[in-house]
Amino acid sequence: MATMPLLADDQMTPEARAVIDDIRATRQTDFINNFWRALANDPALLKRTWDSLKAVMGPGQLDPKVKELIYIAVSVAQSCEYCIHSHTAAARAKGVSDQELMELFAVIGMAAETNRLVTAMQVPVDDVFKVG
Amino acid sequence: MATMPLLADDQMTPEARAVIDDIRATRQTDFINNFWRALANDPALLKRTWDSLKAVMGPGQLDPKVKELIYIAVSVAQSCEYCIHSHTAAARAKGVSDQELMELFAVIGMAAETNRLVTAMQVPVDDVFKVG
Amino acid sequence: MATMPLLADDQMTPEARAVIDDIRATRQTDFINNFWRALANDPALLKRTWDSLKAVMGPGQLDPKVKELIYIAVSVAQSCEYCIHSHTAAARAKGVSDQELMELFAVIGMAAETNRLVTAMQVPVDDVFKVG
Amino acid sequence: MATMPLLADDQMTPEARAVIDDIRATRQTDFINNFWRALANDPALLKRTWDSLKAVMGPGQLDPKVKELIYIAVSVAQSCEYCIHSHTAAARAKGVSDQELMELFAVIGMAAETNRLVTAMQVPVDDVFKVG
Amino acid sequence: MATMPLLADDQMTPEARAVIDDIRATRQTDFINNFWRALANDPALLKRTWDSLKAVMGPGQLDPKVKELIYIAVSVAQSCEYCIHSHTAAARAKGVSDQELMELFAVIGMAAETNRLVTAMQVPVDDVFKVG
Amino acid sequence: MATMPLLADDQMTPEARAVIDDIRATRQTDFINNFWRALANDPALLKRTWDSLKAVMGPGQLDPKVKELIYIAVSVAQSCEYCIHSHTAAARAKGVSDQELMELFAVIGMAAETNRLVTAMQVPVDDVFKVG
Repeated sequence: MATMPLLADDQMTPEARAVIDDIRATRQTDFINNFWRALANDPALLKRTWDSLKAVMGPGQLDPKVKELIYIAVSVAQSCEYCIHSHTAAARAKGVSDQELMELFAVIGMAAETNRLVTAMQVPVDDVFKVG
Repeated sequence: MATMPLLADDQMTPEARAVIDDIRATRQTDFINNFWRALANDPALLKRTWDSLKAVMGPGQLDPKVKELIYIAVSVAQSCEYCIHSHTAAARAKGVSDQELMELFAVIGMAAETNRLVTAMQVPVDDVFKVG
Repeated sequence: MATMPLLADDQMTPEARAVIDDIRATRQTDFINNFWRALANDPALLKRTWDSLKAVMGPGQLDPKVKELIYIAVSVAQSCEYCIHSHTAAARAKGVSDQELMELFAVIGMAAETNRLVTAMQVPVDDVFKVG
Repeated sequence: MATMPLLADDQMTPEARAVIDDIRATRQTDFINNFWRALANDPALLKRTWDSLKAVMGPGQLDPKVKELIYIAVSVAQSCEYCIHSHTAAARAKGVSDQELMELFAVIGMAAETNRLVTAMQVPVDDVFKVG
Repeated sequence: MATMPLLADDQMTPEARAVIDDIRATRQTDFINNFWRALANDPALLKRTWDSLKAVMGPGQLDPKVKELIYIAVSVAQSCEYCIHSHTAAARAKGVSDQELMELFAVIGMAAETNRLVTAMQVPVDDVFKVG
Repeated sequence: MATMPLLADDQMTPEARAVIDDIRATRQTDFINNFWRALANDPALLKRTWDSLKAVMGPGQLDPKVKELIYIAVSVAQSCEYCIHSHTAAARAKGVSDQELMELFAVIGMAAETNRLVTAMQVPVDDVFKVG
């Protein structure tokens, strides 16, 4: 039910295959999830997306596990079903427990509720919060 | 420019004042931000919201600092200006650095981009991600 | 700070003026809010929008007051500042009290929270809910 | 396809079972929909959510039937499939007719359209709408 | 799994049938997609929606093909699965290639990312951009 | 009112300055809008974002003018005020007329309305639309 074909390895251009091979090497698994097979329809977009993802989600100031939680939070707020499934799986693979996930969901739900209350009442920003 | 008046302490009902006093005691500061002054128009809603916030954002499986980052991520995804300002201030107060914030923003932006690519291509969920 | 000029009466085409006159006659007031002055840049869009609004928001199965509450709920869920302000004013003009507004906001906030919890857990629709 | 298991009654903790029993007693039916079975993975979150829902959706300034319409409006604006199904069923159970639902949908659609027009033209809030 | 029945031709009122016949004549095909069969539950809403769609999506300052791309962009940003499928099909019927679609998706993804970065940093509008 | 400082040229690292210089050379103007001054707080993110933007928004299968319209559509659907202002200015600079903009807005509004109707009625995707 995709709007773009999910390409098998032998349907990809050499440029796309090179990116797929790097994903396999980086993740140390042969499994390639559907997102990358769909993106392979545009090899330049595939490469740019993978390069960015490696740079953004890798180790940095924040722990990769925390980054997965943030990624899930955005995906839930934007109602992206595929993203929620794939990054919940990724979070579990990085050691996130079910209890931590439920606590993540509680924060997401609470933030959604208070966001709407703030918006409904059109609360003005307190002067003390302005830093820029 | 709020749609509801921001109540001063002496305009609140005793029930609302009791909640405000608990916020001051819990946060160990006299400062009450506009969100609570707007909510005070409905003392029952004020009490329920504060009680939930204390339960959800306090220590648990996840670090309170991590919870603030998740809260900001939801607020950005939902474009709530007030929430972004107040919780960025809260995150800084809990020791989050500017470098960590910029990294948080990079994850949020990346998630937004890949979410939309997934949605546009209507990528089906891989069987291996299905756990429920 | 609009992206389109807000037209004064004498800057409009006769076709646009005719719509504006009908808004004045229908609402029994000379005041024309900025939304219509911006739409007047495209007289056909102005006419279509006003005709639809009259048909949809007028009396029907649902009370016009209830329709205003629904309109505000959508505007809050979509974070449209102008829409929240203009339709909260419209609701008050139709007799909606501050207590009713606060209760409306509580339902909006609660719905936002449980929506996110459902989305985060990807809860499948119960068979009993399927009617189509 | 949920990200969390949907717990059967005998898989729940006693704390979660007590909440489920209260839902059954309050609604006077044995049927428990999937939302609560998913939330039961976190008994504290389950209890907080049910207590809030009872307080917010019960009788008050606004009629419970009107509250269901508002709840649906938010769920549509946020594209929550499960929420739309469960609350449309709840609305029908409270006596909302198909004609009323179609009229509700017309208001939701109209609000979505004019919201986007306002946002696109960045219409400034009229001074007369500012009350806070 | 719809919340409203999808009406067959012989289940519609004469008023609804007249609109359906006009859709067939305008599109020069007997096929009527589900959206119109659902809307037929409210003949007045069906007529208003079809009349508006013909006026808005037809030839004008912008090419109908470009309008389809814009329509898809909005549908992706709002996560409307049905809308993405039906308008991607419509775009292809109007001669849009897979390469153009992938480029469209890249722009949508890029816009989503930079939108979130702007929102997270709360970047103030440059004076030079203000024209209204 | 930003959450991050808007850096002047002499407050940037050499790495950030090099990107800013490339923006100036590419656009053939000395003016740097606030978005880039905010991103300069994270030179790696600044570089990645600018490189992607150049690749995505430049000439390709779709006309750069059409890409700006798509960009605006996404920004409106996501309610990003800054993005709407900056890309409406960019569209005008590329020769988009006010009449074309109003027509763009009409399509965006119409898409938002029908998206919500589809979502409210939970219309199932027609078999004929499924291609993946």
